[in-house]
Amino acid sequence: MAEPSLAIHGGAGTLPLTGMDPAMADAHHTALRAALAAGWKVLSKSGSALDAVTVAVMTLEDDDLFNAARGAVFNADGKLEMDAGIMSGRDRAAGAVAGICGPRNPILAARAVMEHSETVLLAGRGAEEFLAAQDIEFQSFDYFCTERRVVALNQELARRASGAPDTRSDADRHGTVGAVARDAAGNLAAGTSTGGFTAKRPGRVGDTPIIGAGTFADNATCAVSTTGTGEIFIRFTAASEISARIRYASQTLEQAASGVIAELFSNGGDGGLIAIGRAGPPSLPFNSSGMYRGFVLSDGVFRTAIHREAYRIFDSRE
Amino acid sequence: MAEPSLAIHGGAGTLPLTGMDPAMADAHHTALRAALAAGWKVLSKSGSALDAVTVAVMTLEDDDLFNAARGAVFNADGKLEMDAGIMSGRDRAAGAVAGICGPRNPILAARAVMEHSETVLLAGRGAEEFLAAQDIEFQSFDYFCTERRVVALNQELARRASGAPDTRSDADRHGTVGAVARDAAGNLAAGTSTGGFTAKRPGRVGDTPIIGAGTFADNATCAVSTTGTGEIFIRFTAASEISARIRYASQTLEQAASGVIAELFSNGGDGGLIAIGRAGPPSLPFNSSGMYRGFVLSDGVFRTAIHREAYRIFDSRE
Repeated sequence: MAEPSLAIHGGAGTLPLTGMDPAMADAHHTALRAALAAGWKVLSKSGSALDAVTVAVMTLEDDDLFNAARGAVFNADGKLEMDAGIMSGRDRAAGAVAGICGPRNPILAARAVMEHSETVLLAGRGAEEFLAAQDIEFQSFDYFCTERRVVALNQELARRASGAPDTRSDADRHGTVGAVARDAAGNLAAGTSTGGFTAKRPGRVGDTPIIGAGTFADNATCAVSTTGTGEIFIRFTAASEISARIRYASQTLEQAASGVIAELFSNGGDGGLIAIGRAGPPSLPFNSSGMYRGFVLSDGVFRTAIHREAYRIFDSRE
Repeated sequence: MAEPSLAIHGGAGTLPLTGMDPAMADAHHTALRAALAAGWKVLSKSGSALDAVTVAVMTLEDDDLFNAARGAVFNADGKLEMDAGIMSGRDRAAGAVAGICGPRNPILAARAVMEHSETVLLAGRGAEEFLAAQDIEFQSFDYFCTERRVVALNQELARRASGAPDTRSDADRHGTVGAVARDAAGNLAAGTSTGGFTAKRPGRVGDTPIIGAGTFADNATCAVSTTGTGEIFIRFTAASEISARIRYASQTLEQAASGVIAELFSNGGDGGLIAIGRAGPPSLPFNSSGMYRGFVLSDGVFRTAIHREAYRIFDSRE
């Protein structure tokens, strides 16, 4: 038996500390807590890590504060191309989707690929055709659209047209949601979902749906979900690299996770990740100004943070 | 300074030993030798591993004997969706394309993504739009089509319609081309290109364009290109796993490459790979009935094989 635990992130695309008013910070803490609550409800009833990760990510996808599903950012053509990936550490089953728009919860789309297709990664229209035959909810383009992301797209396109330098904050450049969990049976799981980055090139696939880069789980080592400059995370196989350092270099989860984040930073990659091992607390390192994040241990206490401040604590048993 | 070396594969989708007549075997040896010659011409003139890999893969793509570019297999809709990936071990630069049809050489498309975009992986129509603006040759659908692949698609669709069991040989299920190289400066590179498998689900992306799964290179460890049941190779991050075992578990290239192929086999994955390290000969393990393959060391001798027979030898200096 293992001690259940869950960690989540709402992306490394945080507003700068100075630009986030208390009400906005409160709203993010509340949203993170809701995702922890959804996942913890599963884990505390002896549910699976895979189910806990799924509902935690769904909760973040449904909230337009975060760049995934509802509230996803637009590509350079003003379209939505969402990526998601999920992996089970028990059998290394995995599923992922890239460049899709339709399913209300892309994480459920990834899970359908894992459970109901012979493939691991499905992209674009072919993916959408497969998903249309699955038992998952679809939504219209309008459901996903938010005014904030329209403004961000227009600002970025205007900047590019003017030739002005890119001075966007992390909040405008990043954004992803994810969860990692360990259940009472000792099974690990990871899930990640994103809209990519504002005004991304159509067809661009980031690290989120790439098994071993943005999403990874293996019961023998760890489960990982990342957020940041996806191309660097792909080139350095960020998630599976953490697993390799635990397995072959005898590093602790914290050593491996922090070490990879440091290596990514020295190669131009900014962002963060959440990782959970076979035992002990999760690791949530980041090299950006902040990362919307939270975790819960077997004590049932929800801890959430945005920048490098102390975690806010909420005891779910009260 | 390092000793230049090059290895290539034409996929694990070999005809069975009993089903391959001598003329067909000769044709494959000739084609493999042509690819080695193209790559070796670069390396023997102090060219880069990246350029050697590029031209070796192009040679195999241009030959309709192999399942990549001209001669690629069709998906279930009768369309061509090609994947390719390339990576430079010097700086871990990488580029990949998924689900494209148009560029005569998908490996050049992957290289254009690496060198002329800010992304690593571009898929589908967005990829094709980017590539149309690059300085690479395009071809019509007819150029890629071959009668043999039309027959294979129709047979497979008829089998599925009839509900008959899948008794296809490796030759009908697999097929990929790839190359790995080490140049005189000690730089490593890997490239892979494929049409996927016959009657694959539209939108399916295999391991070929997934950095760390089907294609990987890092000067510190090795360069790898794989062929086989791509989904298993993705779930077990086949290529970067070899690198991790060399770096962290002090395994030799041969131990790591053979060990991963054995692990894949025990998890339902069949196929093979080619890998090259910082020094010494390449490793070319496979767990399928055969793998079209060849390599050349600094002696300039071309060695090619299909099944587990002795290598045929051709001295390029004669």
